[in-house]
Amino acid sequence: MKDREIENSKNNDMDEQQIIKWLKKHCKPIRDEVILGIGDDTAVIDYSNDTYLLLTTDVVVDRVHFISGRVSPYGIGWKALGVNISDIAAMGGSPLWALVSVGMEKNKSDICKKIYKGILDLAKQFNIDIVGGNLSRSEVLFINIFLAGIVKKEDLVLRSTGKPNDILFVTGTLGGAQKRKQFSFIPRIHEAKKIIEIVKPSAMIDLSDGLASDAKKLAEASNCGFEIEAERIPVSADASRKNKIFSALYDGEDYELLFAVSPEYESLIPDSINDVSITKIGRLTEKKQFLLRYQ
Amino acid sequence: MKDREIENSKNNDMDEQQIIKWLKKHCKPIRDEVILGIGDDTAVIDYSNDTYLLLTTDVVVDRVHFISGRVSPYGIGWKALGVNISDIAAMGGSPLWALVSVGMEKNKSDICKKIYKGILDLAKQFNIDIVGGNLSRSEVLFINIFLAGIVKKEDLVLRSTGKPNDILFVTGTLGGAQKRKQFSFIPRIHEAKKIIEIVKPSAMIDLSDGLASDAKKLAEASNCGFEIEAERIPVSADASRKNKIFSALYDGEDYELLFAVSPEYESLIPDSINDVSITKIGRLTEKKQFLLRYQ
Repeated sequence: MKDREIENSKNNDMDEQQIIKWLKKHCKPIRDEVILGIGDDTAVIDYSNDTYLLLTTDVVVDRVHFISGRVSPYGIGWKALGVNISDIAAMGGSPLWALVSVGMEKNKSDICKKIYKGILDLAKQFNIDIVGGNLSRSEVLFINIFLAGIVKKEDLVLRSTGKPNDILFVTGTLGGAQKRKQFSFIPRIHEAKKIIEIVKPSAMIDLSDGLASDAKKLAEASNCGFEIEAERIPVSADASRKNKIFSALYDGEDYELLFAVSPEYESLIPDSINDVSITKIGRLTEKKQFLLRYQ
Repeated sequence: MKDREIENSKNNDMDEQQIIKWLKKHCKPIRDEVILGIGDDTAVIDYSNDTYLLLTTDVVVDRVHFISGRVSPYGIGWKALGVNISDIAAMGGSPLWALVSVGMEKNKSDICKKIYKGILDLAKQFNIDIVGGNLSRSEVLFINIFLAGIVKKEDLVLRSTGKPNDILFVTGTLGGAQKRKQFSFIPRIHEAKKIIEIVKPSAMIDLSDGLASDAKKLAEASNCGFEIEAERIPVSADASRKNKIFSALYDGEDYELLFAVSPEYESLIPDSINDVSITKIGRLTEKKQFLLRYQ
């Protein structure tokens, strides 16, 4: 099989890309304490002598991120908070306080409570306090969560600081989220902390849009390209496409971590943490191409 | 005319009330630094020796808070941020950092940019940095903003600390927001700070749902009732109901401040601040009734 240039099938909406570019230009922070605004998994604010405040928000919308009726409200709530916790994990941080906005049709309090049950159960696992939010009527069900966390300054990991030849690793298995996992995943907070304790990654990102798209984001932010070795990708048994690697590359919703480590520390990375596998899948490159290598 | 018991026509959705009650019970904070979770205009977090962090979120949804096509996207964006700034104002705080979530149909980047223009222009007026957010497809247009701010500990004003016989004041004029004001109002940050400088209110709330509903919230949180004198209500010239006082009581979307001041300091409150009128409209009472008095 021939090596192939990776395309990202998600996020190829030029419209969205164009708006985000426009936003980055128009939202340049004016306050000194804003270390990082738009452009990574979370915003980073100077908080105290030794910690940064991390701020993130993510929304799940009916018929876009889930289909109500086909998924339990509990699972929808779980996912709504989980995707935000995953963003804090990717920066090396700890989640603390969340605000929850729910938009839904009137007289659905049973469904609303089940959604909240999913949110609250996951919040409990990570000691997150739900400190506010609001309920609004909406013809389309959506849940928008804001999450604040903190990170020790020395532990902060960005997506933009990878270097050519750094080794790429992923946690867990990829491509199996379309079935169930996306509504019951455990965000990789503990694994991220453990990894940072062993050796601080040069760059990290969480896998929300699929390996192809998110690896590209990490590489581009780090001014690099990447090579991923097809046969190394830890494909989930639940991957449903005929070519299972394509599930891992393009399906998204895995909420695993992709991180880069300087080659000199490669051997320090364990095969698993807390029963979550850690797999070497490739490396960053100086050449700005996005290559899937077949042996 | 006879005095009448005030009913709140908004927020009488028992379903919503029931969910909020359920939420308050299930979201009791576990972290010591959470001074106040669900139950006021913003959450209050212990931040540093002399300041609290304020966290709030509010959403505007098409066909609920505005009707797209009838309102400029610029005005929708302005309102989406304005309602959040108003919540920070009601606590006596200063807004700092915002995250913006927009849900909209694909290929509407022109409308999206106009919405953002409204957000950015208002953000500039109050030195707020837009530090993050996201764009999502959604069949219904919504804008959900999260806003963080700070307040000096000594300046924090809650809605729950009013006392019987405290005098009630409102800023500006009420009942005229249905026409234009709700898409171009200036949140009362500066006025709130000036009031606190002159005499710290015993309680404060912003008027989003209408005087009847919000005065009830302040009174109930403070374990009081209230009497409002009908002829004192500063009704807007734009009020559109036949009985204009009913516009002021029930229409909502004014985003003015209602605050309570101990009777001994009543005379210190000026008639206006920055050309915004300040009007005495009644008082809190020991008896837990909500009375509109006619002379």
